Amino acid sequence: MDTTQPTGILAPALTAFTDRLDIDTERTVDHLQWLLGHGCDALVVFGTTSEANSLSVAERTSFLEQAVAAGIDSKKLMPGTGCCSLPDSVALTEHAVGLGCPGVLMLPPFYYKATSDEGLFRYFANVIERVGDERLRIYLYHIPPISQVPISLTLIEKLASEFPGIVVGIKDSSGDWEHTRQVIDRFAPAGFRVFPGSELHLLSALRAGGKGCISAFANINPALLQKVFQNWQGPEAEALQQETERQGRTLRKYPVIPALKAILAESRKDPGWENIRPPFVPLSVAQREALFADLEALVTSENER
Amino acid sequence: MDTTQPTGILAPALTAFTDRLDIDTERTVDHLQWLLGHGCDALVVFGTTSEANSLSVAERTSFLEQAVAAGIDSKKLMPGTGCCSLPDSVALTEHAVGLGCPGVLMLPPFYYKATSDEGLFRYFANVIERVGDERLRIYLYHIPPISQVPISLTLIEKLASEFPGIVVGIKDSSGDWEHTRQVIDRFAPAGFRVFPGSELHLLSALRAGGKGCISAFANINPALLQKVFQNWQGPEAEALQQETERQGRTLRKYPVIPALKAILAESRKDPGWENIRPPFVPLSVAQREALFADLEALVTSENER
Repeated sequence: MDTTQPTGILAPALTAFTDRLDIDTERTVDHLQWLLGHGCDALVVFGTTSEANSLSVAERTSFLEQAVAAGIDSKKLMPGTGCCSLPDSVALTEHAVGLGCPGVLMLPPFYYKATSDEGLFRYFANVIERVGDERLRIYLYHIPPISQVPISLTLIEKLASEFPGIVVGIKDSSGDWEHTRQVIDRFAPAGFRVFPGSELHLLSALRAGGKGCISAFANINPALLQKVFQNWQGPEAEALQQETERQGRTLRKYPVIPALKAILAESRKDPGWENIRPPFVPLSVAQREALFADLEALVTSENER
Repeated sequence: MDTTQPTGILAPALTAFTDRLDIDTERTVDHLQWLLGHGCDALVVFGTTSEANSLSVAERTSFLEQAVAAGIDSKKLMPGTGCCSLPDSVALTEHAVGLGCPGVLMLPPFYYKATSDEGLFRYFANVIERVGDERLRIYLYHIPPISQVPISLTLIEKLASEFPGIVVGIKDSSGDWEHTRQVIDRFAPAGFRVFPGSELHLLSALRAGGKGCISAFANINPALLQKVFQNWQGPEAEALQQETERQGRTLRKYPVIPALKAILAESRKDPGWENIRPPFVPLSVAQREALFADLEALVTSENER
């Protein structure tokens, strides 16, 4: 077993922007530090929740360098590096490996739809060949609700068997537990590392043989997820998971990224956290009021139990 | 009326690749010249059919400069410049305007789905503001089957009224003539320039008030489309359109980009034209045989008529 690989609770870390919508490095690095200090085992920088797909390649490489220079341990980072274009994915992946990141999370090329497993295989194979670094570890990123380009079981099988020790895991953001269970049942026994993309499936995944979860929710309450992870075999596991689901389902009533940013803005007393790149917009006043009323009710019901 | 704006038959020009899958500038420029010499009024470089979304920003700007240096008139080019990331779209758009291209074709940011009209509006507004060049002319790119991010009638209306003289037209690749007709009926009377993304709707569009078409098919038979365009008010219009549709529907039986590349490879006696970036793969032997048998049958039936 490769003990250098991230395990447990990972947050796809939010990216802060200045009022001009440039990356706010300081605020973002502060958030990365807070996450690592409050329950995250590692961080996916440049995940879907990070608005990574609204960032240029230069913005991503520059931020990553600044984060590491500011003291974030690159061994705790699993950057998202999958882009539509082959040279972009190669550049980002090389850069992350060069900085010492233990793994990268790779979207399939997601513009063209209804492409074949063979075409997607060639894409990943090309990236691996061009990066040409034995330190490379790839986590496939299956998120069909957004990418609209699924990574099939057949494709996982082909990549894992063709590139053993390189294609080492997957983030399954299908949102479909039955699918995640299938992936774990089929590939985890050989050491394939499966992370559901939702905290709703954290306990189930751990029991089935998954490695933790990579969940947007970890941006606001990583400590709770870490408790589930620490206690999954203990008597409190169910209760902790239920609390996780209660909170997670509340968040899901709102557009998730703007809602997470509104919560950070409130808890850090820093309205700049609401800055968000289009095509997203901040929560409306009404949405924000409803969200905070919901969160208040959660706390109240928690205290009453 | 702005006579500098492209009108008539536009090809989203295919991009040739070397065996190493780098852009083959010479082959691609040759193709652009061939298209302009054989019936195209102007060219969309970096459209969907150009595999533009498989290219990096640097590859696109570098190719465009080389094409213009090689003698392609920038006044005949409408580059695709819409990316997921705001800085990428701004960079490509500035570059195209700076080179003298009369318009750009702009995809909405297409990674995040179910975004709002307001978010998409802010995206385009941000690009326009950041480019800040009065020469900028934007054609919106509505291609929901692939982008999965539609440009609604409400959004067109808001952009056209907020940025008159800048947001000047649309390529409608919905593939749905009723939708294209609606767009023309509603916006063309005020001068909005509508191009269906399919040759199947060329004659209908011209009759309704559209400006031509931007069609992948133009890569192989621009002369036929130009005939429809020249004769759309004449007695031969229907027959020419029918022939166009017969050929267009034959092409659509195959994966369009690999099929177009196979046809170019054959007609130019240059197998290198089949090079294609993943996630696409070249036609299989069986597909290629079926395609050429179909094309043969088309020619035969054409001769027999």
